[in-house]
Parts: sequence; structure tokens; C-alpha cells
Amino acid sequence: MSGNLDFFEGSEKLLEIWWDSSSQLTGPTTMKDADLRCITRDKIEKILDLAGCKILSEIKNEYTTAYILSESSLFISSNRLILKTCGTTPLLRATIHLMKVVEEECGMAEVKNVFYSRKSFAQPHLQQSPHQNFQQEVDVLDEYFPGGGAYTLGQQNSGNCWHLFTIDNYTDGLQIPDQTLEILMNDLNPSILKHYYKGYYKDAAELTKSVGISDLIPGTTIDDVIFEPCGYSANGILKDSYFTIHVTPQMEFSYASFETNVKFRSLKDLIEKVLNIFKPGRFIMTLFGNTIAPCGNSLRTFEKSFPPYKRKDLHFARFKNYNLTYGHYEHC
Amino acid sequence: MSGNLDFFEGSEKLLEIWWDSSSQLTGPTTMKDADLRCITRDKIEKILDLAGCKILSEIKNEYTTAYILSESSLFISSNRLILKTCGTTPLLRATIHLMKVVEEECGMAEVKNVFYSRKSFAQPHLQQSPHQNFQQEVDVLDEYFPGGGAYTLGQQNSGNCWHLFTIDNYTDGLQIPDQTLEILMNDLNPSILKHYYKGYYKDAAELTKSVGISDLIPGTTIDDVIFEPCGYSANGILKDSYFTIHVTPQMEFSYASFETNVKFRSLKDLIEKVLNIFKPGRFIMTLFGNTIAPCGNSLRTFEKSFPPYKRKDLHFARFKNYNLTYGHYEHC
Repeated sequence: MSGNLDFFEGSEKLLEIWWDSSSQLTGPTTMKDADLRCITRDKIEKILDLAGCKILSEIKNEYTTAYILSESSLFISSNRLILKTCGTTPLLRATIHLMKVVEEECGMAEVKNVFYSRKSFAQPHLQQSPHQNFQQEVDVLDEYFPGGGAYTLGQQNSGNCWHLFTIDNYTDGLQIPDQTLEILMNDLNPSILKHYYKGYYKDAAELTKSVGISDLIPGTTIDDVIFEPCGYSANGILKDSYFTIHVTPQMEFSYASFETNVKFRSLKDLIEKVLNIFKPGRFIMTLFGNTIAPCGNSLRTFEKSFPPYKRKDLHFARFKNYNLTYGHYEHC
Repeated sequence: MSGNLDFFEGSEKLLEIWWDSSSQLTGPTTMKDADLRCITRDKIEKILDLAGCKILSEIKNEYTTAYILSESSLFISSNRLILKTCGTTPLLRATIHLMKVVEEECGMAEVKNVFYSRKSFAQPHLQQSPHQNFQQEVDVLDEYFPGGGAYTLGQQNSGNCWHLFTIDNYTDGLQIPDQTLEILMNDLNPSILKHYYKGYYKDAAELTKSVGISDLIPGTTIDDVIFEPCGYSANGILKDSYFTIHVTPQMEFSYASFETNVKFRSLKDLIEKVLNIFKPGRFIMTLFGNTIAPCGNSLRTFEKSFPPYKRKDLHFARFKNYNLTYGHYEHC
């Protein structure tokens, strides 16, 4: 493995927006069945241009269309969009245009939930505006989504903190169960890095199977890409569940992320499988669960131990409809 | 009540340090019974000079000496010091000198717990360095107390967040029960402000009794000061418990703080009494409790409702020996 000294920021920016699909505007743009998936491919590409990325691959089922991007992933469901971009992509520059397209094409103007989050960057000075610091991002988000709250969980002076801007506006009881787990892993064990270089396996599908990613959530349809000369992305969908994995295998700044909304009651086995695949030196883990999510009080999941990892920090926040838990763990 | 348009920052900076009293240095400075209270008054005054404040009054019992300062309070026990200063006082400028004096005079060089905390300032630009922003404070604290963690709880974009730097180093099981409750109140009800202007009551003692402060923790010995033309401070001590109250009654920037380490099992009644005295428009509340504190899992206290206040935010953090809960409440 050659040392690639061109730094790459594996840590993603993650934007998840839920629209109220019952709030279609009246008038010429009204649609009977508002659905984000009615937005045409060229309009999606224009949005992604602003965020600095391109579509590489696509899979879909009746619930979700999942795109692998040149920098991470995009998931579109009827009233929820998840855009995750890494490197120095200016994700938030696409937000206003995204909102406009959704209103024009789908008649959905009312946003119900917004979650913008990211781990602290390893090299924040390499980012483009408005991503050079969290305050800059909050200034923009405050303008787009008035009334939202900006939070930082975890130690700000250790490089393991996690920033969140959220607005949760659901006031009715008609929610669906929802939970999102993220595991953001640094300092992957050197022994596993070679798997994520082009040529080590015949193709991405063989990689996905060999390292155990295909077994994480049985039954998932998986789309995967291996980059030149290294790097890996995978999206998986199964009914209304998704997972997404992105790997930056360069030794000097190795990073892997796992995210899923799979509605397992216990997430412990899944977490252990993911840790066993990437063997990080340290990781942070976040879990959002709404009041009817199967994972229940997410604090409990994080109080479990994940040997050989030791928990360094544990934070919990209660929002209107969601509980959030953050944990920071390091290899003993 | 005349409008005083000279802004005053009521929000305090709060530094609490616990030393290991069994760790006296050997050599000429060794003392048999290490006790912070052996530090002479002139040495304490020199420390306070650096923090920008002076001693106004003093009470003591066998556990604690409690000073009312020109800007807030100082509590000294055998191995714990609590310094709380408001306005634009540069508290952290006194820290290095404080540590030096404690080592020289008491032979205590090993710090076991440090808690530096403050609410976000209303006018941060008026502060002196290193208090102009939290990052500046953390830079200094990282140098003084390597290995500490810096955290921000609550909404950063609403003026109600709370910053904390802490290091908790106790590794043995020989802790004593410890819990600290703080209630930081803004926008006090205009009807109560006049009580905290000089001349409304005969003296501070009458004020303390009339508004109900003397009944907060029955049996407490109270020291109280009313400032010219307005403002109020009180310290109370009862065995190893203390409370401290500071009031900035100017309508434009009214603020009151309450802090206590009283080991009540349930803090609900006390919290309600405090809220009833100051009737804030909004407040944040923090509760630290170590693993053997009578308040138990502090999260539960904050899940209770405090009508007519509505909880806007609830955060919980687990440190090595302490649980911390933060709540932000607003008047409905």
C-alpha cells in the first residue's frame, strides 16, 4: 500500500429532511400524490452539482431510490431525502435550490424534520464555505430553517465531537417509527485497509461479500463501488430500511462510516459486526430514535460495553420527538 | 426603578477544584493535615486581585469558609475551592497563581476534579481575555489541566447554552456523596426586581427573610449583602452544605443564580421554591451528581415538569464519576 499523502476528509456532512407530504400547495404545481421521487434526474443532478458531486450508480425499490455519489450517497423516499457528502463538498450550498425544486416539482413546502450533522473535521481549514466551522454552518441553517437548534455533543478539544442542527416540527401523533444509527470510525486497523484498494478483490461485489458487509442486514439489496486507486461506497436497501457505508482506507487518515435506519430492536449485534469489519482505533456512535422507535431509550444501547472498546463519553439529548444518544469509544 | 443602561453581565464564571489531600509533597513545605483553609487572608486576596474581585464579607463553620466577593462568592473547604465571579472579571487569570499557592502553602499538588463552567454570555465582546469565547477559555484550561474535556450543552444559537470544562481523575472508590445544582435565571418577573434595590428593605437580612431565601434550606447560616444602588448576594452554610445566590435586578438584563451542594434526595421542592422567588422568564438548570449522590440519576429530576415552565431542551452526560444533566426551560 503506497502512502497517499494527499489528505482526504472522509468525515461526511449529512443532511436529512422530512417534508409534510400532506401539505401540497394548491394551484398549478399541485400534485395528487406528492412524492420526492417525481423529481427528474436532471433536476437532481443540478442539485448535486451545487453540492459538488455526481451520481455514479442507482438502485431502487418501492420505498427508496438510493444513489451512490462521487462523494458518498443520496437516498430519496416519498417525503424524506438524505444527502451525505464527504471530502470538501459544500453540501449546504445545495439546500436552497433543493427546497425550491421540492416545492416546485412536488408541491411540498412544509418541512417537518431537519437533521444536519457531522463529526468535527480533521482538517477544517481545507473546507469550502459555509463548512469551515460549525458557526458558519449554523448561520446558514438558521436562515434556511428558522427555529432550529444547534448543538455540539462530545469533547470539543479532542477531535471527537459531533455537531448537529435540528428542527423537529411534528406535533401530531401520526408518526412512523424511525431510528438512525451512525458509526463514524477513525484509525482503522492497518490489516483491513488493503481490502479497500482497487485490485485486491476482483470487484466491489466480491469485496462486499468477503469482508462481511453483505451479511450486516440480511436480505438487503446492495449497490457498491470501489474507487481508483482506493476507497469504497455501498448502499443497501430492504423495504423501507437502508444502510450506507463509505471507506477512506489511506493509512494516514483512515476512516469508515456506517449509517442505517434499520428498525432492529437491539442494535448490539449489528454494531459489533460493523466494528469487527473495520476494527477502528476510535469511533463515535450516534443514535436517533423517535418515541415509537423499536430501539427504545437509546441510552441503554450505549451503556453496553463493546469490548475491546472503552467508552470515553456518553451524552443523551431529548428533543421534541426524538431521543439522541452520542458515545465516543476508544480501543483499550 | 430607574433604568440603568450600563449593561452588567450577571452570568458567572464558576471554577470548582478538588485536590487530593493525601498527596502532600514531601520536603520543607509538607504539612501534616493539608487544608486549604491554612492559606492566609492576604494570599487569598492576592489570588482574588488577579480575578478582579475583593472580599466583602465572611462566615465559616467547621467545614467551610464562605466569602461574599465584590463579584459573587468564594467557598473554601479542606480540599475543595469554589470561586464564582460575575461581570467582566477574568477568573481564569487567577488559576495558575491559585494552584501555586495551594501547592506551596498546603503541599497539595494533585488535582482530582476540576469543573469550570458558565452560561453563554449576553455580551461576550465586553469580556476580558481569556473569557471572550469558550475556545479561548479552553485553550487556557487545556494548558492548566491537561486531559480535561470541553463540552457545550444546550442550543448554541439561542443564548441558553452552557459551557463546561472538566477533568475528573478520581479512580478509587473512596468518594464522598457529592451533588451540585445550579439554576441560572434570566428575565426575572418585573414585579420582584424592586426587592433587590437598596432601600426597599431595611437591610439585606430583612430582604433575605422577606423574599423567602432564608427558608430555602432550613437551618442555614446566611451572610448577605445588598449593593448600591441594586444587586444582592447571599451565601449560606450548613454543615458541609452551601448555597449561594446572586441577583442582578436591572430590568434590561435581569439575572439571578442559585447554586447548592445540599444533599437532598429530591430537589423538586427546592427548585420550585427558587423559581417562585425569582419568577424567571427562562432558566437553565444543571445538576452534577456523583455515583453515590443522593439525587441518584439526575435525569429524573429534570424530566419532572415545573409548571408554568416548559422544558425546551434536556441533555445528559455521563463522566467517569459524575452524571450531569442540563435543562433549559421557558415560561409558557
